[in-house]
Amino acid sequence: MRKWILLCATISSAFTLCAQSDDEKDFVEACYNYALTENKAYHDLEYLCKNIGARLSGSEELEEAIEWADTLLNGIGADKIYRQDVTVPHWERGSENGYFYSISGRNKLKLTALGGSVGTGNYKISAGVVQFDSLEELEQADSNDIKGKIVFINKPFDETFINTFKAYSSCASQRFWGAVKAAEKGGIAVLVRSLSNSHDKHPHTGVMGYKEGVDSIPAVALSLKSADKLSEDLKVDTTVSLSLRVSTTIHKDALSHNVVAELTGEEYPDDIITVGAHIDSWDLGEGAHDDGAGVVQVIETLRIFNEFGYKPKHTIRFVLFTNEENGARGAQRYAEIARSNNENHILALESDRGGFSPRGFNLDSKNEALKAKIRSWKPFLEKFGLHDFSDGYGGVDIAPLKTVNENITLLGLNPDSQRYFTHHHADNDVFEAVNRRELELGTASIASIIYLLDQNIK
Amino acid sequence: MRKWILLCATISSAFTLCAQSDDEKDFVEACYNYALTENKAYHDLEYLCKNIGARLSGSEELEEAIEWADTLLNGIGADKIYRQDVTVPHWERGSENGYFYSISGRNKLKLTALGGSVGTGNYKISAGVVQFDSLEELEQADSNDIKGKIVFINKPFDETFINTFKAYSSCASQRFWGAVKAAEKGGIAVLVRSLSNSHDKHPHTGVMGYKEGVDSIPAVALSLKSADKLSEDLKVDTTVSLSLRVSTTIHKDALSHNVVAELTGEEYPDDIITVGAHIDSWDLGEGAHDDGAGVVQVIETLRIFNEFGYKPKHTIRFVLFTNEENGARGAQRYAEIARSNNENHILALESDRGGFSPRGFNLDSKNEALKAKIRSWKPFLEKFGLHDFSDGYGGVDIAPLKTVNENITLLGLNPDSQRYFTHHHADNDVFEAVNRRELELGTASIASIIYLLDQNIK
Repeated sequence: MRKWILLCATISSAFTLCAQSDDEKDFVEACYNYALTENKAYHDLEYLCKNIGARLSGSEELEEAIEWADTLLNGIGADKIYRQDVTVPHWERGSENGYFYSISGRNKLKLTALGGSVGTGNYKISAGVVQFDSLEELEQADSNDIKGKIVFINKPFDETFINTFKAYSSCASQRFWGAVKAAEKGGIAVLVRSLSNSHDKHPHTGVMGYKEGVDSIPAVALSLKSADKLSEDLKVDTTVSLSLRVSTTIHKDALSHNVVAELTGEEYPDDIITVGAHIDSWDLGEGAHDDGAGVVQVIETLRIFNEFGYKPKHTIRFVLFTNEENGARGAQRYAEIARSNNENHILALESDRGGFSPRGFNLDSKNEALKAKIRSWKPFLEKFGLHDFSDGYGGVDIAPLKTVNENITLLGLNPDSQRYFTHHHADNDVFEAVNRRELELGTASIASIIYLLDQNIK
Repeated sequence: MRKWILLCATISSAFTLCAQSDDEKDFVEACYNYALTENKAYHDLEYLCKNIGARLSGSEELEEAIEWADTLLNGIGADKIYRQDVTVPHWERGSENGYFYSISGRNKLKLTALGGSVGTGNYKISAGVVQFDSLEELEQADSNDIKGKIVFINKPFDETFINTFKAYSSCASQRFWGAVKAAEKGGIAVLVRSLSNSHDKHPHTGVMGYKEGVDSIPAVALSLKSADKLSEDLKVDTTVSLSLRVSTTIHKDALSHNVVAELTGEEYPDDIITVGAHIDSWDLGEGAHDDGAGVVQVIETLRIFNEFGYKPKHTIRFVLFTNEENGARGAQRYAEIARSNNENHILALESDRGGFSPRGFNLDSKNEALKAKIRSWKPFLEKFGLHDFSDGYGGVDIAPLKTVNENITLLGLNPDSQRYFTHHHADNDVFEAVNRRELELGTASIASIIYLLDQNIK
């Protein structure tokens, strides 16, 4: 506490005595000192992961998490705190297992249903397996080779991409479109290699799609170890057969909520800056990196501003979006309300790439002058590890704000990406996989850049 | 394999067709592609950690590791491969335990003897405890308050340092000098807070010292959880007592070896570039980050140069130093031989900060022009995550080369430091704590910078 009073005194005297640029540096340094010593985001994340856990759209746990966040934000305090109703899909996983039979014997598959998949009913399905190295290879294949079979799509990450999100993007179509493309050629189920670069036993779920007029067939992801074993055996044994049993339930849509906390701008109350993350997660693990990390970083940014007595020039909205994982309906709803209220959204930032050491921010903006200004801060921000301010994607939840203002500037926190796809959408996305200091560095980076933008955007 | 042939073809045509600068870029990109797809350093590290494990100076395991590295280097091939005899200390841990008794009852301490510590003999010692918040506070204390007591030095890491090595350095004196300072005032044993920022149950060992004419008293490190609990109870209970039993053995010095593999320079065979890491480790855990990571990165750099058919301009020595942890005698011996042979050492690089995502290199050099040249590569190297080329410390094993050439340029690989002191010198420094891609990015960074320096140093 003594430390904190000293900190406030330092900031306040810095604000009075120093030039603007020194004020800014002091504020940013104070953000890092506060986050790294108080560790409140880390403790919030522990609560969210351990006392609530996984929180898929439609689940009780998601609404519990929303209640928890609402209460937490109210405890911190803001000018307005409110919820936005959002209708969300409600898909539920049941039991699931699979085996393949080959020259190496009976092999248990480590698998998990993709989100939205239908089940196999009350029985298992059994069939031969046909493997493709990519979705494109499947598209070019002859239906006669596929009819009545289980289709296995096995495209691995391209390890040569330094940023693993690029590898993810280049494989994501097999997960989303695999079932449609397989069913169009008569396949009875689809297995996809998990979208991961971690050669372990954890399968990674994620959203998949169906198409009207095409049979909805069961779709599951295999762990990399299972995918490699199956692929290996398929090379030497043309008689491999596979049995699969998956139960899932598609319920009617459920009611969920975005949670919004707002600090009203002192100079430009009508100009809105959004700082967001998503509060829902997949049903495996604890949604720690995806996106518990982002949630507690957004909450902590509000806490830092309040603790420092910071009165923003522009209105800053701290938004916890619901249903990013399987619908992005929270994001759509937020943009829809913004459009119908004729709100002026000038900037938005999203944190949804894990609680790892921050490297910088992706910039998605037509405003070249603003991007140049942000990049001009690099010599100062680099000592905090922020060095990458490349053009790039902001994030799924802030993307619809382009329908509100096509000239909006979007930023995506860009943490070190090497470990993200070890945990993404899998049962090992747990609190223990998050390093306290890496998470808090991300927190301070968000608070710092939002402060700098609020001060300098005009 | 097909990929590899294509890669070679690309490199070789690039060398023939492109300007120097494009050659360099192609070579560097090939280093990253090779390391990230072949993962040989990672597999070597698995072998070293799981089949040999911890390897403290004087142990059979260290000599096994040296044998393994020698065989591996011979398999890869170099112009010369040889060993240098080094006499090393041989200290051995026995059993150890401790308890403290306070108003909260009997509390088991998670502790471990510091390297080099004497034991408590065949019995436990019991006494009251006196706590100091730093070594400086102990130095200023009255002997009457210390005599016959167990001294507890509890200085925590300063969390506000972004680079955790700075926090480590500012606390390291309590571990090294704690026993001497406590004994000088009549203390009968010393407990130090582990040099870590991880609030868990793992104690962290490390080297400590004694002083002639001052009693040698037992010295142990407490896990942060134990240190916090003891400190908390000491605040409210002045009658806390503690019992400690530690057995250790100081054997006579043992014979160990540095392993050196050499590619002879085509243009400047007498000018030597050293690329080093240390093959010994503490006796807890598996020495994965410290410094198994560095060892396999150094070996992999030789492998990459060989695979690419790269003939260096200068002589490049790949050196696995022995006994870094408790004596640095391997480093001293290497420098001593260099001096007596009048070798011309122009540059050395060390990897001894863990197998984490690389951020850049510390530069320790009087050669301002060379540092400026290295920094001029940043716009290209930044896409691999290398952005920090600040002045800084090279490393313990290459530091003595300044006695060979005071104008030598030293580089230290600088990986992201946030997780290092979770594992450093503790039983959780195991293979599983190393991320494959983070390790391999470090490998490629070393190979790239050594290649660039070999090409451009003159």
